[in-house]
Amino acid sequence: MTSPKKLGLQTVVFKNPPVIIASACIAGPKEAQGPLGHTFDKTIDDLYYNESTWEKAEQKIFQETLELAIYKSGLEIEKIDYLLAGDLTNQIIAANFTARNIGIPFLGLYGACSTMYEGLALASMLIDGGYAEYVLVGASSHYATAERQFRFPIEQGVQRAMSAQWTVTGAGAMLLAAQGAGPRITHATVGKVIDFGEGDASDMGAAMAPAAADTLLKHLSDTGRTLEFYNLIATGDLGKYGRELVVRLAEQQGVKPSHTYQDCGVLIFAEEQDAHAGGSGCACSAVVTCGYILNEMNRGRIKKFLGIGTGALLSPCSCQQGETIPGIAHAVAIEM
Amino acid sequence: MTSPKKLGLQTVVFKNPPVIIASACIAGPKEAQGPLGHTFDKTIDDLYYNESTWEKAEQKIFQETLELAIYKSGLEIEKIDYLLAGDLTNQIIAANFTARNIGIPFLGLYGACSTMYEGLALASMLIDGGYAEYVLVGASSHYATAERQFRFPIEQGVQRAMSAQWTVTGAGAMLLAAQGAGPRITHATVGKVIDFGEGDASDMGAAMAPAAADTLLKHLSDTGRTLEFYNLIATGDLGKYGRELVVRLAEQQGVKPSHTYQDCGVLIFAEEQDAHAGGSGCACSAVVTCGYILNEMNRGRIKKFLGIGTGALLSPCSCQQGETIPGIAHAVAIEM
Repeated sequence: MTSPKKLGLQTVVFKNPPVIIASACIAGPKEAQGPLGHTFDKTIDDLYYNESTWEKAEQKIFQETLELAIYKSGLEIEKIDYLLAGDLTNQIIAANFTARNIGIPFLGLYGACSTMYEGLALASMLIDGGYAEYVLVGASSHYATAERQFRFPIEQGVQRAMSAQWTVTGAGAMLLAAQGAGPRITHATVGKVIDFGEGDASDMGAAMAPAAADTLLKHLSDTGRTLEFYNLIATGDLGKYGRELVVRLAEQQGVKPSHTYQDCGVLIFAEEQDAHAGGSGCACSAVVTCGYILNEMNRGRIKKFLGIGTGALLSPCSCQQGETIPGIAHAVAIEM
Repeated sequence: MTSPKKLGLQTVVFKNPPVIIASACIAGPKEAQGPLGHTFDKTIDDLYYNESTWEKAEQKIFQETLELAIYKSGLEIEKIDYLLAGDLTNQIIAANFTARNIGIPFLGLYGACSTMYEGLALASMLIDGGYAEYVLVGASSHYATAERQFRFPIEQGVQRAMSAQWTVTGAGAMLLAAQGAGPRITHATVGKVIDFGEGDASDMGAAMAPAAADTLLKHLSDTGRTLEFYNLIATGDLGKYGRELVVRLAEQQGVKPSHTYQDCGVLIFAEEQDAHAGGSGCACSAVVTCGYILNEMNRGRIKKFLGIGTGALLSPCSCQQGETIPGIAHAVAIEM
């Protein structure tokens, strides 16, 4: 058997690239007001979404998103082999309780805000390898569950640093299949954990940028592709300062990103929305990819896309104990 | 291409069953005193393990365990394609920081105490599918990091319920390869999240037992195997009450487990060690499998083993918000 992966490289090339047969995204009120508001399948008005707690609201958003992706595909739920999902809450309860209600064999992931892309990479291997016909991949985050867990009670009104980002409320889901029509996942580059010693939890873009640059450069050298090969390259949630750092780190290696390199955290909020450095959270790359980017691909306006999910692998406990913030980034090439 | 997975079934049959070329386990002081103390590669005397915090001690144990598995294999670390790992700490910081120091492309998992088996199932698909030559799988837990995160500060000396379990301190790791000598992973059954409405966080065995029984019965019906096919079947960390529940649930379906069905949480501590219902935690199934069970297999005393990693998908937050405790279980068949 010829291995689909060349030894010594970090990038997998799929022989039968899995197809994204359906996708769905639901986002929150602030996201609805942003420049991509019209690209989401549904937006909610209230962070509680008629639930008694924010955590239950996040789970409800997540579940509705997965159900919408399944509905759009027209597939019977019993045909879906696996659900790969995760989120930012401790012990990924949003994903766990959603998986309980959905009832598909479940593999829980934690890649911080890179979770959607970690799931896409793994799901593509499961389908291309023949272990599944259909895999559902999803990730969620919620501004209020993340704020109180990672930072301060939002009622406290703590002033946020200009380098801080705004956790996106929402969830995204993609249904991947061995066959069908739609954009295909052709390559996946699984990242290493990279830590340049950044320790400021109010500047996660800087903490994740080195991992994003590392994975981007590995992807290009493994595949022999150039930046220009892609109509769009988007990192997950580095925000504007993190994006600038990736540009600088890439330039140091002789690769010069242009306007075709964007960041989902920069795209999702407008300057006047006071989100400071931009959006973050598992849902940031998930809703931007499942909304704006896949829409553009399905309309033929983007033919070759490289998404790079980015995650900051900290916890409040690790920060309190003086640790720096390691980053990770997983890249997935999606092509029409 | 013939799919290695039959549609509609939950069990994957590997065409080229991945080989466990090396394994390692390190355990804590209480585990050292238990009946399996002699089967661990190393035991530590002190829960701090010369670190300033328990969390850093857990990470050190995890890292040493992974390094030991790599050392035993004689493999250069650069040849390992992926690290699949997770633990119980919020945002899986034990795994994240270990992955940072180890430097292998990393896929973070969260399956609560089923994480080791979730990792084995996924790693086997990545190898059998041709996406990797070598995958390192690991999981850790630590009595003191788990107690303060999930329950009470241990200094408080809260009286524990008799149904409560004792989180195992330690870590286990297996290095899987496409070729080589050793036990092979022949099948994997990925479980669904099952919730019978149990809500007592002091009785997690009861919460996980329905998922364990469901996965066990699915595995048997998918493969056409009987309980007697296996020399040993072991669930991860149900403890004695959870194990009894699995026996009863299986009997209701016409399957009668005998003494060949054991639970790692029952095996790891002796009655007089005051661990109440038994051991728990990601490390429970990890150290028992990587120590006792693989030792017995390598000596030829167990030829066919079915391990069923079990996880309780709760968080302190979900319990406080009145949720019940969903369970999950993933089964992996290991054969000589």
